Amino acid sequence: MPTDLHVFAVPGLPDVTPDADLAALIAGAAARSGRGIVAGDVVVVAQKIVSKAEGALVRLDEVVPSPRAREWADTHGKDPRAIEVIFREARRIVRMERGVLIAETHHGFVCANAGVDASNVMPGFVTLLPRDPDASAERLRRAIAEESRCPVAVIVSDSFGRAWREGAVDVALGVAGLRPLVDYRGCVDPYGRRLESSVTALADELAGAAEIVMRKTARTPVAIVRGAGEWCGDGSGRELVRDASRDLFR
Amino acid sequence: MPTDLHVFAVPGLPDVTPDADLAALIAGAAARSGRGIVAGDVVVVAQKIVSKAEGALVRLDEVVPSPRAREWADTHGKDPRAIEVIFREARRIVRMERGVLIAETHHGFVCANAGVDASNVMPGFVTLLPRDPDASAERLRRAIAEESRCPVAVIVSDSFGRAWREGAVDVALGVAGLRPLVDYRGCVDPYGRRLESSVTALADELAGAAEIVMRKTARTPVAIVRGAGEWCGDGSGRELVRDASRDLFR
Repeated sequence: MPTDLHVFAVPGLPDVTPDADLAALIAGAAARSGRGIVAGDVVVVAQKIVSKAEGALVRLDEVVPSPRAREWADTHGKDPRAIEVIFREARRIVRMERGVLIAETHHGFVCANAGVDASNVMPGFVTLLPRDPDASAERLRRAIAEESRCPVAVIVSDSFGRAWREGAVDVALGVAGLRPLVDYRGCVDPYGRRLESSVTALADELAGAAEIVMRKTARTPVAIVRGAGEWCGDGSGRELVRDASRDLFR
Repeated sequence: MPTDLHVFAVPGLPDVTPDADLAALIAGAAARSGRGIVAGDVVVVAQKIVSKAEGALVRLDEVVPSPRAREWADTHGKDPRAIEVIFREARRIVRMERGVLIAETHHGFVCANAGVDASNVMPGFVTLLPRDPDASAERLRRAIAEESRCPVAVIVSDSFGRAWREGAVDVALGVAGLRPLVDYRGCVDPYGRRLESSVTALADELAGAAEIVMRKTARTPVAIVRGAGEWCGDGSGRELVRDASRDLFR
């Protein structure tokens, strides 16, 4: 039986500040929108507001850039303090060219600027990725479930560039209450052939769908995907990070 | 004003054979499902049935494997004829390890087995990717628009593995009637800051959303995304292929 998905942004969220009760803000905004939150909803929350609520912000005035950060920033016309923050967040610099820094974060994510970002952030500050996006997702899941009195899943999402393809897509950094991968291996196709290597990154596809309705400039950093309840269960965003030893695409 | 997306599979499609009128089959199935096709719908069609309808199939009995294909197949327990077909479809072999072949196709797609696939195909055959997925999408777009008497967009999609992350996601190989990239550069965030490098691969996110409802084993290789009409316009899947010189992630 095919599932219908319904994907919609949650309007009316206020500006999120450190120590905001993000779950209460989300549940409240969803209730005011008239659609509420129902059992099995996947609540997709942009990393930016999770980081803001958790205080994962750095005031650039308090950053003393290293000579290396200063040199690179000067060459490429960047703020040396922001570059310093990127270096601190990076476990490894993957590429550093033409003013673009691709880094592997301590979580194992590979993304531009190690996830350090100034967009949609008050001037003079940058946000970091949440320290533990799965823990962030789990805290939100519990609190939203309590506020809305029904079981939900939560994805903490961010826009990542990719190898081989133009444009960024949203992916799931943190996941709670959802199986992030759908494993079709061993399933049989209509011709009786066993599928060999079909594992789908469901949580990333859900994050991408949510991104479409969030829009980057519309102040709607939360979206709900309704209809994916069958995939609710145990899972984490960590499962989506591919170990280097298994990665033939990098 | 936020957009709602509604994503649903089109049930009741018959097995697709070479020279099938795929557009008529899709429009007919959509009409029988009671939801039809409406202006602005994005019709996402799995590559597999596009290839089947276009006759992009190879009968393995007619393939004579090269010594190189034979050697590699023997080492990894694969069918040397299928490996030979992969070699023919590949412009470049990216990686060839542990029984996995990652190749760049003549289109510039980087994917497992150069897109050559035996799943959901009658025994003894493999499918190739469509020669020109944008042309396939455009033919379908025109014919579906004519059948359903309203303007639609078409995405020809396939599941691709990725660098850095576990699991495959569906991406747009061919696009017609849709702008595949949304460019937020120059837009201003709520703090007045100009967004620097925000280009979103909308068509890939739409393909991923459609994949969720298609399911690999449910015989529903067509899905409709309703609500994305504002992005209808001119575009192609080619725009999503990143030129090597611009790719810092590879």
